[in-house]
Amino acid sequence: MAEMVNVAVDAMGGDNAPVEVVKGAVDAVNANKRVKVFLAGKESVIKEELKKYTYHAEQVEIVPAEEVIETGEPPVMAIRKKKDSSIVKSMYLVKEGTCDAFVSAGSTGAVLVGGQVIVGRIKGVERPPLAPVIPNIKGVSLLLDCGANVDAKPSQLLQFAKMGSVYMESVIGVRNPRVGLVNIGVEEEKGNALTREAYPLLRNCPEINFIGNVEARDIPYGGADVLVCEAFVGNVVLKMLEGVSGALVEKIKGGMMSTTRSKIGALLVKPALKKTLKGFSTEEYGGAPLLGLNGLVVKTHGSSRANEIRNSILQCIAFKEQKINQKIKEKVVLEN
Amino acid sequence: MAEMVNVAVDAMGGDNAPVEVVKGAVDAVNANKRVKVFLAGKESVIKEELKKYTYHAEQVEIVPAEEVIETGEPPVMAIRKKKDSSIVKSMYLVKEGTCDAFVSAGSTGAVLVGGQVIVGRIKGVERPPLAPVIPNIKGVSLLLDCGANVDAKPSQLLQFAKMGSVYMESVIGVRNPRVGLVNIGVEEEKGNALTREAYPLLRNCPEINFIGNVEARDIPYGGADVLVCEAFVGNVVLKMLEGVSGALVEKIKGGMMSTTRSKIGALLVKPALKKTLKGFSTEEYGGAPLLGLNGLVVKTHGSSRANEIRNSILQCIAFKEQKINQKIKEKVVLEN
Repeated sequence: MAEMVNVAVDAMGGDNAPVEVVKGAVDAVNANKRVKVFLAGKESVIKEELKKYTYHAEQVEIVPAEEVIETGEPPVMAIRKKKDSSIVKSMYLVKEGTCDAFVSAGSTGAVLVGGQVIVGRIKGVERPPLAPVIPNIKGVSLLLDCGANVDAKPSQLLQFAKMGSVYMESVIGVRNPRVGLVNIGVEEEKGNALTREAYPLLRNCPEINFIGNVEARDIPYGGADVLVCEAFVGNVVLKMLEGVSGALVEKIKGGMMSTTRSKIGALLVKPALKKTLKGFSTEEYGGAPLLGLNGLVVKTHGSSRANEIRNSILQCIAFKEQKINQKIKEKVVLEN
Repeated sequence: MAEMVNVAVDAMGGDNAPVEVVKGAVDAVNANKRVKVFLAGKESVIKEELKKYTYHAEQVEIVPAEEVIETGEPPVMAIRKKKDSSIVKSMYLVKEGTCDAFVSAGSTGAVLVGGQVIVGRIKGVERPPLAPVIPNIKGVSLLLDCGANVDAKPSQLLQFAKMGSVYMESVIGVRNPRVGLVNIGVEEEKGNALTREAYPLLRNCPEINFIGNVEARDIPYGGADVLVCEAFVGNVVLKMLEGVSGALVEKIKGGMMSTTRSKIGALLVKPALKKTLKGFSTEEYGGAPLLGLNGLVVKTHGSSRANEIRNSILQCIAFKEQKINQKIKEKVVLEN
C-alpha cells in the first residue's frame, strides 16, 4: 500500500475561509483515500464546519492555531511574531516532515516568506519560484517566477527553467516540455541585460528543451510549456491574463445583452460558452507551487472556493509520488 | 483659414503596403480638406495605386524613394545606409519642417531609430516613449513606454507621465487624466528599484494627477488613463492584451460552434458581439505616437489596413492644432 500523503491546509486563509477551505479539504479526502489533511486554524471554528460533512475521521486532523495572518500585514514581521498562526504552524509541520505539503489561500507574502524562512530552500537552490499553471488556447503552461522577489539573476532563470521542466513533465504530464524565455522579441539579442545573459545559459543547458524567446503575444496561444521570467514580468503576465479575460468576458456578456436578438442568442450559446470559458480560467488549475523548498508549499487564489482547494490538495499527491524534490535535487543542484 | 497639416506617409511600410496604405491616405484627405499627404515610396507603384481613387490633387504629393527598409533589418544600419528609403526620406521631411508628422506601418525598429536620429528629440527630453492608445472596458488608456529601449530611469518615467498626460488630455480629450505606475502591488514600497524610486517623483509632481500604483489586473478595467512603465513591461502589457484578446475570441468562437444549439445562438449574437469586440481591439485606435520629438512620428501596426492608416493620419491634426509639442516643451522641459 502506498504511503499516505499528508497535507497541511490553512483553514483560516483566503476570502472564503473557513467555509470553502474546510469543504475543499473534505472533498479532497473523500476523493482520494491516500490523502490526510491537517486543518490548521481556530479549533472551535473548524470543528463547527466539519460537522456539516461525512468523511473518514482518520483522514482529517485539526491543528489548533489561534492567530490569523491578515493579507495586509507585512509578511516578514507576521511570520516572525505570529507563532500560533495557521500559516506558521503549518510550515513547521512541513519542515519537521509530519506533512508533505501545505496549501494556503492566505497572504501570498506570508506564504512566500514562511516557505523560505521556515520550510527552507533545497541546498543549492538560489531562489524558490512561485510557479502557477496558466491556461492557454491549447492547454496549460507553467509560468515562473510569479513570486515577490523581483530582479532575478540569469543563473536563477536557468534554475527556474530546470525546476519548471521537472514539474511540467512529472506533475502536469507534458513530455519534454518546451522552455521559452519571456522576452520582447524573438531574436537572441532582444530584451534587457537579464534576458540577454540568460539566453545562452538556457540554450547551452542540455537538460531542458529550450526553444528560444517567447513574446507575450504568443503566451495565450501556448507558445511554450514552461515560461521563464523574473517575478515582476511574471506578475504582469499573470495579472494581464486574468484581467483581460475577466474584462473581455464582461464586455462580451454586455454586448450579448444589447439587443433582443442577441439576448435570445445568448441563451442558446450560454452552456457551450460557459464550458469554454472555464477552460480559460486561471482558477481551474489548482494552486501555484513554490518550487525548490524542502517540502511542497502551494499558494492558491485568495478567492479560492472548495473546488480549487480540493484540486490544490490533490495535486500534492503527484508531487510526492513523482518525487519532484528528488528530481530537482538531481537536476538543479548536483549539475550546477 | 487654418493651416494645412502635412503628413508624410510610408507607402511601402507594413504587411498591406502599398495597397491599403495608399487607400488609407486617400480616405484621410477625402475626410478632411486640411490634410495633405506626402506618399513616400516607389513612384510608379504609388501612381498606379492612386489611379484607383478620386481626390483633390493638391492634397496628395508623391515623394519618390526607391529603397525599402525591411522589418528584419538591423534598424541602426538601415537608417544609416538606406538614404533613399521611404522611412528616411519621410523623417527628413519632418525634420526640415516640410511635414508636421510621419505615419508608418513599417519596421518599428527603423521608425524608432529614425525618429531619434533624424527627427531628433525636443531638447531636454531624455527618451522619447512610444505611446499606444489601448482599449479598456470603459474607454482607452495611454501606455508608455512601449518602445525598444528598456531599463528606463526614474526621471524618464516622470517625463513619460508628463508627456502622456499632455497627449491624453489634448489629443484624446480626457480631462485631468489619472496617471498610474504599472506595478506588482498597490503599496508604495512594492515593485523593483525603478518603481520604488519613480513613485515619490510621480507623487510629488504637481502637474500630473498621480493615483499611485496600478496592478496589471486593473489595466483592462481602466485602472488609469495614463499607464507609466519602462519599455520591457510596456511591451509585455501590450502584447498580453493583444494575445489574450485574440486567443479568447478564438476560443469563444470555437465554443460557439461546438453544439447545434450554440451554433444557432452564435448567428443571433454575432452582430452585437462583433461591435463589442471591435471596441476592444488595439487596432481601432490609430497608431502609437513617439512622443517628445521635434515633430510627430506615428507607428501603426504592421498589419494596418486602410482604416487604421486613415485614423493615424487624422490624429495628426489634433496633435498639431493642440500644439502638443509646445505643451511638452513647457511641461516637461522648462519645469525640469
